[in-house]
Amino acid sequence: MNTFTAINLIKRPTGGAITNSLFDIVEKEIPTLKDGEFLVKQSHMSLDPAMFGWMSPDTESYIPPVALGDVMRSSGIGEIVESKHPDYKVGERVMGMMGWQEYVLSTGQGLNKVTVSLPDEAVLSIFALPGLTATQGLFNVGKPKSGETIIVTGAAGSVGSIVGQLAKADGLNVIGVVGSQEKADWIVNELGFDAAINYKSDNLDEQLAEYAPNGIDLYFENTGGPIQNLIIDRMNPHGRVVVCGLISEYDKQVPSPGPSWLNVIKRRLTIQGFTMPDHFHEVPALLEKLTPYVMAGKIKHRSHVLNGLESAIDGLNLFYTGENKGKLIVKL
Amino acid sequence: MNTFTAINLIKRPTGGAITNSLFDIVEKEIPTLKDGEFLVKQSHMSLDPAMFGWMSPDTESYIPPVALGDVMRSSGIGEIVESKHPDYKVGERVMGMMGWQEYVLSTGQGLNKVTVSLPDEAVLSIFALPGLTATQGLFNVGKPKSGETIIVTGAAGSVGSIVGQLAKADGLNVIGVVGSQEKADWIVNELGFDAAINYKSDNLDEQLAEYAPNGIDLYFENTGGPIQNLIIDRMNPHGRVVVCGLISEYDKQVPSPGPSWLNVIKRRLTIQGFTMPDHFHEVPALLEKLTPYVMAGKIKHRSHVLNGLESAIDGLNLFYTGENKGKLIVKL
Repeated sequence: MNTFTAINLIKRPTGGAITNSLFDIVEKEIPTLKDGEFLVKQSHMSLDPAMFGWMSPDTESYIPPVALGDVMRSSGIGEIVESKHPDYKVGERVMGMMGWQEYVLSTGQGLNKVTVSLPDEAVLSIFALPGLTATQGLFNVGKPKSGETIIVTGAAGSVGSIVGQLAKADGLNVIGVVGSQEKADWIVNELGFDAAINYKSDNLDEQLAEYAPNGIDLYFENTGGPIQNLIIDRMNPHGRVVVCGLISEYDKQVPSPGPSWLNVIKRRLTIQGFTMPDHFHEVPALLEKLTPYVMAGKIKHRSHVLNGLESAIDGLNLFYTGENKGKLIVKL
Repeated sequence: MNTFTAINLIKRPTGGAITNSLFDIVEKEIPTLKDGEFLVKQSHMSLDPAMFGWMSPDTESYIPPVALGDVMRSSGIGEIVESKHPDYKVGERVMGMMGWQEYVLSTGQGLNKVTVSLPDEAVLSIFALPGLTATQGLFNVGKPKSGETIIVTGAAGSVGSIVGQLAKADGLNVIGVVGSQEKADWIVNELGFDAAINYKSDNLDEQLAEYAPNGIDLYFENTGGPIQNLIIDRMNPHGRVVVCGLISEYDKQVPSPGPSWLNVIKRRLTIQGFTMPDHFHEVPALLEKLTPYVMAGKIKHRSHVLNGLESAIDGLNLFYTGENKGKLIVKL
């Protein structure tokens, strides 16, 4: 076998479900190494909501979109199987932006060696984009204080589940918003959230009143949706809103409006958006912040593993339906 | 004459125009002074959009509403006409929260002596709530940098006109949004704004493109309205939105939604609300910041003067129609 499979983006999504027609599945030659290069056999790829942005036609986006015809962008983890690079040895594990392909030729740029002794799924679920995003958003944007109340939407998702556990470890009252009873049970019984709200239930405002009797200080937004207005209505003066994701909006052609700014004045709120590409240079500091929580056993995770490169395409739609249980990972 | 007139709030507005039925016009005895007290004859009262909040039934508001039956709250300026207080002498000018009444009995608490040699209208227009609000919002929340582009809504209003002139003095490209050609001419020709946009014109987005060719860094919001979405769509990465007022919303029973948060993520925006009661303890520092601009002749103003205490009631509606030309002041 001298070839491997890769998936190129050939069309941009324009709303609705992600389909095969956006992609071209190609066979490529396994390249011959030059000095200073090494070859990685990718074992697991991560699927992340940020990928909708990377496929987006919007040229004003925060990170250049994947060029049409290029391999679809993604992060992943794998093992070095061949090397002509003095610093990278066969058998070492590396992670980074590897794309939708089985093999990656690299000079080392943009890849990091994996030194923690955790399985591939755990590394991708905690130390890759989800954990870095949770750490940056919660601590550096949200600035949580012990005793405050935080509400996290998409709380069973890869980022939200880590945000809630970090906040709980730091002494906050943590409410998670999810889309199923199964996820509600998981975040409360397994992850230790103080309360869960299923956004599909019909007494959302009563539940917010019950679980946040002293109001909400911090709102970590991963999803969007009508609960936004109810949350904003219960925020305390000088509350902070961290806008990390709006998964309910990414497949819409016309975005839904946001909450009125009347509460922004009345409650003197700060609403702040962030994206990780601005903070890639801070990754070492973020890992230093995150690692002690993981080592102390405070951060649990679960992975939802799909099998085979091509399962990635339809796998993206699970972000819209919310049917995945845990961090979406494609096993190659 | 041993009596004077005062206006009490007896009903809360519930949307629509402000009418006499919300108020009770009463005659009161001029009080006899005790030691430590003095009597101020108010000469000019300020009308401010913040007064809609003070009349509001919303108990969660940032400042306690005026209690029903109490004198309507307002700031004003006047002269001491009688004194049994060693530090306040007859003939001195004072300003502060004096309310809708011709005379005010005071121990000095909450009042400040006026030492600048400017007419009453100028003091109320620049050094009272409008100038303090502009200074706090622009410098401490907005953090403008020379060379940036700022857009100010309600740009001919008491706060907006000062914000724009301060920003211009600090080297920003300043765009003002107004509601009439007359106001557009005034802010460009008299106040030195770089450009004005009449929000009632039909090519708003083209005008934004023309006047902000490098995008918008700072958005100082006084009004609300549909132009919000067009502005947000042209903001630069890491842009800041200072939410100071939403005059187009205060007479609505159901508030209009705000812009989608998609741009908050994509452009990594910070949207921050503020109100002055949080910053009253910082007034000395704010005046220290503002005064050099005024003394250097950088801050022009104009007053729209109504005559007689009772003109205040209908005068509030001018904030909704935008028919006033300059800072609304009631001359007693």
